[in-house]
Amino acid sequence: MTATVTPITSMHRLYSFVAGNSGGWLVEQVMRVSGELLPAAPRIAVVAETSAHPPRDATWCLRGITSNERYVTREEKTALAAKQEGLGRAQASCAAMIPIRKSAAWWAMPQDERRDIMEQQSRHIAIGLNYLPAIARRLHHCRDLGSNEPFDFITWFEYAPADSAAFNELLRELRASLEWRYVEREVDIRLRRADS
Amino acid sequence: MTATVTPITSMHRLYSFVAGNSGGWLVEQVMRVSGELLPAAPRIAVVAETSAHPPRDATWCLRGITSNERYVTREEKTALAAKQEGLGRAQASCAAMIPIRKSAAWWAMPQDERRDIMEQQSRHIAIGLNYLPAIARRLHHCRDLGSNEPFDFITWFEYAPADSAAFNELLRELRASLEWRYVEREVDIRLRRADS
Repeated sequence: MTATVTPITSMHRLYSFVAGNSGGWLVEQVMRVSGELLPAAPRIAVVAETSAHPPRDATWCLRGITSNERYVTREEKTALAAKQEGLGRAQASCAAMIPIRKSAAWWAMPQDERRDIMEQQSRHIAIGLNYLPAIARRLHHCRDLGSNEPFDFITWFEYAPADSAAFNELLRELRASLEWRYVEREVDIRLRRADS
Repeated sequence: MTATVTPITSMHRLYSFVAGNSGGWLVEQVMRVSGELLPAAPRIAVVAETSAHPPRDATWCLRGITSNERYVTREEKTALAAKQEGLGRAQASCAAMIPIRKSAAWWAMPQDERRDIMEQQSRHIAIGLNYLPAIARRLHHCRDLGSNEPFDFITWFEYAPADSAAFNELLRELRASLEWRYVEREVDIRLRRADS
């Protein structure tokens, strides 16, 4: 490849989630919410990288990329930015990794219908806002990494042990929504920071 | 990798555009619209594939993936579906491949502001509709294939030689729009089907 197709930026947006015997997060629970479960492994490493080749001894490796906002309006973005905190907070020693795949029916809908289900009918953004800043979150997109990705999204959450009950309540609210009728596979992996 | 991360579908959505000495499309013109040009090559092959490794003798290889609609409403989707025709029509022996990269300012905007610029202010969807069914189009997304893609989109157009002037008018309308102020790199490659 020539230099002319080299990009301007080199900011890391692509992350690998590698399950195996090493990594900074200890797996405490792997729960099937819908569809097929992922195999359990002792640890998960979250690695900012671009390689398509996972470590050879990994139990599994899932990849996702942070991207532009797909549904959020300016007003919602401002409200979120005013309350949210980033990953990596010292007290946030609990994490959850939740890979999700939505149905073909979801993806066949035009933008206005998906937005209507997600926010007007399901209040996805408003619900998440209620749990800020306690529950920090980073959304990774997987669906368009290739033709055959097993999940559409991976969301990574971090929170303090004292906020575990609130986190469960957040998930309960989202899973009761109309939007979640379009979720055909969901795995809920709970973790604890290895140095905590 | 275990079978548990194998996906359900295997529909091809990822395409490679390989410039070099082989391929079904003869390059007639490579034009710089904004930003850096791509090197010229005699032919381009459009290949449905998932490999990250381009052929060794390629001048360049760009990849893009078809995806769900990001802006189109139900009403617009219905109007487009009623008029549009697919790629591969016998009479459509002309093609254009137009890779585009938009600015960081574009991607930092929330969904409602991007939609407002694209359609309310720039009439992108309405303009395209005026040129259906003569100009067939397939949009490929590149930006989220990795952290460092050189382009955000590749659009592939096909039309009959008699519609070349109309195609130029379509581009003139789009490039005059507010949306195009956010385009920081654009290359316009015109092709003719090798067997035509």
